[in-house]
Formats: sequence, structure tokens, C-alpha cells
Amino acid sequence: MSSHPLDPIFHPRAVAVVGVPSNPDAARMRGFYHSMLEAGYPEVGGLYPINPKVDKIGDATCYPSLLDTPDPVDHVISQVPAPVVPALVDQCIEKGVRSIHFFTAGFSETGDANMADMERTMVGKLKDAGIRVIGPNCMGLYVPSSRLAFMDGFPMDSGSVFLLSQSGANAGEIVHDLTTRGVRFSKVVSYGNGSDLRANHFLDYAAEDPESNVVAAYVEGVQDGPAFFEALKKCARVKPVVILKGGRTSSGSHAAHSHTGSLAGSIEVFDAVCRQAGALRAETMEELLDLVVACSTNTRYVEGRGVALVGGGGGGFAVLSSDAIDRAGLEVPKLPPEAVAEMREYIPVAGSSVNNPIDAFPDGADVERMLTTVGNASVIDTMFLSPQTDRSRWNRSGEDPAADFDMAAEAADLMVRTESAIGKPVVGILRSGRMARMMGVDPKSFMVACYERGVGAYPSVTRAAHTVAQILDWRAGREGLPDLFGSEANAGDGS
Amino acid sequence: MSSHPLDPIFHPRAVAVVGVPSNPDAARMRGFYHSMLEAGYPEVGGLYPINPKVDKIGDATCYPSLLDTPDPVDHVISQVPAPVVPALVDQCIEKGVRSIHFFTAGFSETGDANMADMERTMVGKLKDAGIRVIGPNCMGLYVPSSRLAFMDGFPMDSGSVFLLSQSGANAGEIVHDLTTRGVRFSKVVSYGNGSDLRANHFLDYAAEDPESNVVAAYVEGVQDGPAFFEALKKCARVKPVVILKGGRTSSGSHAAHSHTGSLAGSIEVFDAVCRQAGALRAETMEELLDLVVACSTNTRYVEGRGVALVGGGGGGFAVLSSDAIDRAGLEVPKLPPEAVAEMREYIPVAGSSVNNPIDAFPDGADVERMLTTVGNASVIDTMFLSPQTDRSRWNRSGEDPAADFDMAAEAADLMVRTESAIGKPVVGILRSGRMARMMGVDPKSFMVACYERGVGAYPSVTRAAHTVAQILDWRAGREGLPDLFGSEANAGDGS
Repeated sequence: MSSHPLDPIFHPRAVAVVGVPSNPDAARMRGFYHSMLEAGYPEVGGLYPINPKVDKIGDATCYPSLLDTPDPVDHVISQVPAPVVPALVDQCIEKGVRSIHFFTAGFSETGDANMADMERTMVGKLKDAGIRVIGPNCMGLYVPSSRLAFMDGFPMDSGSVFLLSQSGANAGEIVHDLTTRGVRFSKVVSYGNGSDLRANHFLDYAAEDPESNVVAAYVEGVQDGPAFFEALKKCARVKPVVILKGGRTSSGSHAAHSHTGSLAGSIEVFDAVCRQAGALRAETMEELLDLVVACSTNTRYVEGRGVALVGGGGGGFAVLSSDAIDRAGLEVPKLPPEAVAEMREYIPVAGSSVNNPIDAFPDGADVERMLTTVGNASVIDTMFLSPQTDRSRWNRSGEDPAADFDMAAEAADLMVRTESAIGKPVVGILRSGRMARMMGVDPKSFMVACYERGVGAYPSVTRAAHTVAQILDWRAGREGLPDLFGSEANAGDGS
Repeated sequence: MSSHPLDPIFHPRAVAVVGVPSNPDAARMRGFYHSMLEAGYPEVGGLYPINPKVDKIGDATCYPSLLDTPDPVDHVISQVPAPVVPALVDQCIEKGVRSIHFFTAGFSETGDANMADMERTMVGKLKDAGIRVIGPNCMGLYVPSSRLAFMDGFPMDSGSVFLLSQSGANAGEIVHDLTTRGVRFSKVVSYGNGSDLRANHFLDYAAEDPESNVVAAYVEGVQDGPAFFEALKKCARVKPVVILKGGRTSSGSHAAHSHTGSLAGSIEVFDAVCRQAGALRAETMEELLDLVVACSTNTRYVEGRGVALVGGGGGGFAVLSSDAIDRAGLEVPKLPPEAVAEMREYIPVAGSSVNNPIDAFPDGADVERMLTTVGNASVIDTMFLSPQTDRSRWNRSGEDPAADFDMAAEAADLMVRTESAIGKPVVGILRSGRMARMMGVDPKSFMVACYERGVGAYPSVTRAAHTVAQILDWRAGREGLPDLFGSEANAGDGS
């Protein structure tokens, strides 16, 4: 819990979903009510479906109006069409709710002046009554600890990532995609048109939220420049903030205007603001996902550009990977002759390379010896490990080699052991098709196994290298700001 | 069949695998023999395992030496260690084989002068005897029509893509990855150190091969510049040639030298040669895969930079996709007011955008009407379609909406109908996670369903846009060369 004034919004004591569709087949239209049921919200608070046309939704009483529900209702989710909103606004004020989330769309984002007026009027009325507004035109809240969810299938265990997103679908994609990589969230808010609460409010909250260690943001437009800058500065000073701006290009900014009514603004100014505030800018969704993984795992501690690429996925893979690392602005430095000579004692010459990239994956205990030798070289700052080898050759000390075992977990454990032996971050590289074929491993389980052990894993060498380079550049560019992941910040840090 | 002098190599009448490991548990080491068995080669020719230490491999007779096999043996696969190679060379000459593929590594690529000498000597001896050499240090041949395969799990139906690769692992990855996208191959050759047969020979062959319509190449070094340039010119004049050079960067070229003994060479010269020859350059593996798909589907016919992005995957997705299209050098042009007005007759304003990007996916027959309206706009040259909608809302004319159906095939059929209605290429966009969740579709089955209907499908908008831009630039840059995919070349073209 936080003492921030917005905190109660994330912990409502009862929720009403107004405008639950009456057609019992229309499961897709009952999204919020269904997702809240699935999330287990009724176990922590009252959940009231509201529709005057039906008495029951499933086994639950369906109320004709918000005013008919038992006291108190803290939070209202509005699925009613825009023309019905003025009546709902009056009911919310009479009922004394704390916050309302308008899934309802069709306001200012349509470009229609009358609808923009209506949005301003209703939000003004609600704010005057002390009721905060999320939206309109958005998906609202996902808070696992409070059992709030806006889509089905979201995990109900909490994590340390706070996400704010102007787009509901993008918020959903980010949650789904990062979940499959092992990430979990403290709070997620999709705020759409942002007519009341918007990026600056949520950044201000996230800065103080003890449950949130990493902040990710998807924004299309900045509605209040100075307030945004202040909140971003406050937040990015104390936590990594990864920010993706949709509508960076001419085509994209036109699309953003149709989507959330956002006005373009200069991307140069936006970038300068982020730089000054010390935030991490993502230019694509992939970058955002990878940077969130990096900021919540060992990748954030990388100290230099020397990469050891290790794994044994074939010489051609090693060549293309070296190209990718080089293009990202990192290096694949040659190892000292002593290290090469040491490895040649147990790695045959034919069909292998041992002078970085290392195209070898020796059997048995030799693999750990090799990883330590490579990682201890002073030219190496981080190791990219793609543990590609047949199940039959996997090193399992002292156990029956035929026994069933979780190879993803074994590989992740090897990475953790290597990291503690060399004292440098070891980064996992997924090779999805090959891993599934050779190791019999669901590729996602490898990324999750890594993440659960604090090891960043990425879907390709290209993405890992680009991410590491971004982290290095970002940390170097935080002039006058605390180094969040330097050796001091490091001590006693969990997350 | 082709009259090219290399053609017999792709159609051997009998194959001996020399050096099949004697340990029956070492399945992974018996790769070639096992893959050939699995490919059904014994049905078309004699397949002889050779190892003096055992009598049987499975149920098959294992011969003590090549000379003990029944006549004739056209092709030998060598898995013996390098020191045993000289004796095998003599046996091949005595036996009168036509070609030998050395999986055996440990020659010139090691940087050891003695081993490089040995490679030159053995290859010279074989060539003097009229025996062609593939390798050493490579995976050799995959020819589905001849039931030759170098890895397990390769499909045995033929296609029209010819692949040459200096790296065996990369060849395997390309085959596996493109197979999951629906592509099939005429012939694949991994040629490693290229001590005899090399890129120029295979390009010369591919140019004349009636079974090959698209040529893909992975090379690390060019061993004979003028011959390579001539063969590339010959081939790229008549067929699309997609070429990926490993070792473009400083780190990558060091790795290539360790891998196949390739010397760097100037990447500027290489690029200039490709440009003059009219080949398509890929800079990454992803680009190579996407360009092969593009060259063998409708994507190759795209005539301009105006993209309509259609699908209904959420406004934020539309915004980021527009950014990606713009960054690739394409455009997301506004549609004429008449088109927008027409769509607004049946697409509600709230929660949708209809002025490109189109964030809408109307129910029933309206979706086809919308796609035709959008595609017919004169500013549009190609449509990117991401058919994202609930199964329950999918348009299935006249059928029970609850009936089981193959949604990937339905989506691909819709694309084909749209393409014939608008006369412009419709490109498929995969959204893997969302598609699986909303449509219950295995994402790969969507890409395959598209490919089988001649529709190019790509894993993301970013990749689709980049591919389209590359195709446009490549065709525009083929000065003085035939436009392989212009309206004339178009007539009567299949594949």
C-alpha cells in the first residue's frame, strides 16, 4: 500500500460493471465482468453486473441500475454506449463512487466536436464531485493483488512491473507477451483518451509505489507537457522507466490522432524530454518488451561492450550472430591465447571454434570449465549463452542420463552457476525452432526459467545485443542522475 | 532433369555413408544414414553403411569398406575423421564414384597449414579422377525428389526454391524455418570450405535448373571472384537470387574465418557485385527468409509504396504498425472521402478507425465489402491484412456459425478473394499470440495456408513492410535487366 492519493483507485472495495450485455451468448461483449469473475474479484469485494433488461447474469443478481446495488461501490466500469453516459454520470455522483473507468468510446477521439464537448462536460462534472476518471476509450485496470483484470487469462500472481498504456489492446499484448517471458506486474492501467487521469498522474504514482520496481509506458500523445516532464523526471530518477511513443512517424501520428485523439507534437522534443529525465526510449514494441526484461534481470548490470557468444549452435549461426553483435555497437573480442589453449585441451579442433564466438558445447563437466574460462577473460563483459545441444549430451552430474528432466531449468541453472563463477551477467539466447527440435524444450519455458532465476533471456542474438547496447547507452546518458544499477545500487537489490 | 554437367550429382543411383558410428546408441552421430533412411532413399537406390567394426546397422548389412559394396556407388558421404581421409580417397577412385561429400571437418578451416595442404592434395587427386567434391566441413545434399536428406524431419515433397549454403547448420535452419512457412525446396546444398564445388558452380547450375524458380544463398567468403560474379549474373538475370553474406562486420568476418576458412574481402565490393548482377541482398537471416517468401508469392508483384493496413487488431497496434510501415520507406495514405463515407454506412464510429490504418473487422459479408473498398482506392498498392477477430464473429456465408472450421484456411481464402477483387497483392500479417488466443489458430498454419494459395505472409508488420520495400528497391535497381515480375513476366507464371 502507498500513501499516494491515487492509491485507493487500485484497491476498490466493490466494483459495478454497468452495461453488461443481456445476450447470454455474447461472452466476448461481457469481457470485463467475465475477466473480473475469472480473476477472483468476488472473493475480495462485491462485483455487481448492471443491466435493466435482465435479472441474472449466470447465477449472479443483475441490478437494474447502479443506484440499486448494495453500498458501497468504489469503482464503476462503464460499458454503456456514449449517449447513455450522462445518466450514468449522475448516478455515480449520487452513489458516491470513487472512480469510474469508461470502456465506452466514441468521444473526443472521433474528431466530432459535439462528442469532445460531451467528454469535457462529463469529466468536469465527475471531477467536481471528487470522482476520478480513467478513459474514456480504454480497458482500465489490471491489478493482480486486488483481483482486478480487464482481459481473460491474465496471471493472478503479482510482480514488480508497473505498466501504463494509452492503448488497451497494446496493454493486453504487453501483459500477454511479457507473461510468457516470466514477467509479472504490480499494476497495469490502460487510460485511453486520458480526459482526467493520464500519463503524468500514473508516473507520479508509480514513482512512489513500493510494489513497482520497473515502469513501462505506451503513450500516443502527451496532453500536459510540463506535468508529464515533471512526473517522468520524478519517476525515472528512482526507477527505470521504459517508454514507447506510438506515432513517431508521420503515418503513425495520423493513426494516433484517429485512435486516441492524440496530437502529434514534435518527436524531437519528446525524445529530448525522455533523455533529460533519464528514461529509456523504446522505438518498437519488441524494444519495450526486451527493455522491461533487461531492467528486471541481470542484463541491467552489464558494464561494457565485450560479448562472449557461446553455445554450439553451428558455425554459420556464430558468424551471423557476430555480425548482429557488431551491428548493435558491441564487440566480440578475441580471447587471450592462454584461454584458447586451455580449451583446446578438451575441445577437439574439427568442427569447433573456441576463439569467440565459441562454437562448441563439450560434454559433461567440461562445459562448465569452458564457460568459466571464457567468462573470466578480462575482455569479456557479458556472456550470451545459447545452450544448444542434444538432450542425450546434456551434463547432469551423477544422474542417470536417460532420466526425465526439465532441460529448460537445467540450462537456466547452468547460467546462474556460470554467472556466479565469473561475476558478469550471463544472458540467455532463445533459438526457438532449434531448441524445440534438439532439446525437446518449449522455447517459452526456457525464457521463463531464466527470468525466474534473474537471468534475462531474449528471442534472438540481435535483440539481446540491441538491448544490452541500449542499457549501456542509457546508463551512460543519465548525467547527474543516480546510476540505478551501478555497484552501489546493486547491493541488496532483489526484484 | 537438366543437361547441366552437375545434374547427376543431385541424382545418385547409390549412396555409401562411410564412417557410420558403431555405437548403436549414438543416434546423433549416425545423422546422415538415419536421415537418408527416414527420407526413403533405400526405395530409390542402394544405401550402404560402412564401418569395419560392425556387421549390421539396424537390420542393414554394414560393409567393412567402400570397396566391399555392390556396384555402383555414385555418391559417398564421408563421416570418417580427417586422418582416415587419404585412404578413403583412394577407395573412391578405385570404386569409380561420381561425387563425394565430406562431412569430415578439420582441414583448411582450422588455420593449420598441414591440414590445408592435405585438403588441397585430396581434392586435386579426386578432381583428376573426375570425382566432384562437396565440402569438406559441410552437410551436403538435400534433394526431396531424389530422397536425399542431411537432417531428420525435412519434408519429402519438392518445391521450387534452390538453396546453397556454406554453413550446414544455417542450411538446416533455413529449411526448417521456411518449411514451417509453407516453402518447399528443389535442391539444397551445404558446401562448407568449397574446396572443389562452390558458390559459382551451384549458381550456374541453379540458373539452368528447370525445377528451381527462386535461388537463396548463404555465403561466408567468395573463393573465385570473377567466376562468382559471372555465375551470379547468369542466375540473377533469369531468376530472383536472394543472397546473405555472413561476416559483413569485423566480428562476423573473424568468425567466418574460423568457421569455413573464408577470407573477409571487402563488403563494399561484394555489395556492388550483387547490385550489378541484379541479386537481392539480405543482411540478416530474417531478411533472407522473408525475401524467399516474397519472391515465391504475390509479394513480388507489388508496384508501389502505398499500403492499406487492415485488420482490427486494436488502435495501438494500428499506430505502431503505421510507424513501422513509414520507417520502412512505405506509406499509409489517407483514403478518399467517398471510401470513408461508404465504410461508415456499416462500421460504427465508436472503437473503430476507417481512414487507413483501418481498425475494424465488421461481421458477416461487410468485411469483404470493406476490403474491396479499401483496396480499390488508387492510392493503395498493396494491402496488409491481419485477420484478427473472434472465431464467433468470423464470416462464414450460410453455414452454421458454431460448426468447426479451419480458420487459417478461411482467412487465407478471404485474402485470395480480396486480391482478385482489387487486382493488387494482399499480404498476410501474423500476430502470433493474439491469433492463437482469439482465433484458436496455430499461427504457423496461417502462414502455410497463405503460402499454399500464393499469398506471402510475414511474422510482423515490420518484416512485411521491410520486405515489400526491399522488393521495390531491388526491382527498380535492376537497370538493363529484365523485370522478372513485371506485367509481362507475370503472364502464365505459377509458383
